[in-house]
Amino acid sequence: MSVERIGLEALVVGQRFTSGTKVVTADEIKLFASEFDPQPFHLDEDGAAPTLFAGLAASGWHTAAMTMRLLVDGGLPLAGGIIGTGGELLWLKPVRPGDALTVESEILAITPSRSKPDRAVVEIRCLTENQHGDTVQSFSPKLVVVRS
Amino acid sequence: MSVERIGLEALVVGQRFTSGTKVVTADEIKLFASEFDPQPFHLDEDGAAPTLFAGLAASGWHTAAMTMRLLVDGGLPLAGGIIGTGGELLWLKPVRPGDALTVESEILAITPSRSKPDRAVVEIRCLTENQHGDTVQSFSPKLVVVRS
Repeated sequence: MSVERIGLEALVVGQRFTSGTKVVTADEIKLFASEFDPQPFHLDEDGAAPTLFAGLAASGWHTAAMTMRLLVDGGLPLAGGIIGTGGELLWLKPVRPGDALTVESEILAITPSRSKPDRAVVEIRCLTENQHGDTVQSFSPKLVVVRS
Repeated sequence: MSVERIGLEALVVGQRFTSGTKVVTADEIKLFASEFDPQPFHLDEDGAAPTLFAGLAASGWHTAAMTMRLLVDGGLPLAGGIIGTGGELLWLKPVRPGDALTVESEILAITPSRSKPDRAVVEIRCLTENQHGDTVQSFSPKLVVVRS
C-alpha cells in the first residue's frame, strides 16, 4: 500500500488516524489458535459452544496481531516505523468469524527525549472496532518516534 | 502434553508456575512478521541491521503469542482454561533468533466474584525470560477463573 508516512515533527496531541478494514474468517481464527492459543473456544465451533464465549472467538493475541497489521498497513503511518515499548492492553468484546475490524488511533502525549533530540516517546490509544462500532480491543502503548 | 490442571479452589496468592521452553527460529520470526507485523526489523537480517534494533528481532506480538502458547501448554495449568480480559504488557528486551523463552508466572491477587460464587478475577504476572535470565516481556493480566 502506498501511504504518505510522517515523522515526529508532523505529530500533534489529539491527532487521529483511521486504518483500513480486516475481515476475520473462521479459518484464520482456528489457524492462529492452533499455533499460539490452542484452547477450545478458539479452535472450533463445537468445542467453543459450551464455554464462557458461547461460540468460536478469536484469541485476544490474534486480535492484537491483526490490529498491528492494520496499523503497519497505513493505520498509523509513521516514517520510522511503529516501535512500541508496551502499554495497557484490554480485550473488551469477543471477535467473531465475519467481524470487520478497523483501528482508530489518537495521539495522547508527546514527550521529547532529553538525551536524543531527534526522538520522542509518543503515547497513543488504538481502539479496534468491529462493524457494529463496538470496541473489541483497546491498546495504549508508548512508541519511540523519530524525526524524518 | 499431560499436565494436572487446577481450579480456582487450589490457587493462592504468591503461587508460582514455570512453563516449558520455546526456542525461537529466524524463520518463525520472519513468517509471523510477514503476516502480522511486516516491518524491516522483523522481516530480514539485512533490513534489520540499520534500524534501532540493530539486527533481526521478533515482533512483540510474536513474543506475546509464543508466551501464550507456553502458558496453554502447561505453564499456567488452569482447569477452565486461560481467559484474560487484558492488562499491562511491556516489551523489555528484543527477542532474537535462537533465544530460548520460558515463562515464570506468579499469582498477585484473587478477587471472588460477588454475583457468581464459582468465579474469581485472578491477577497474575507472567514474565517471559530468555536463556540469559533477561526478562524480555512482562504481562500482568486479569484472568477469569472458575472452580473446577
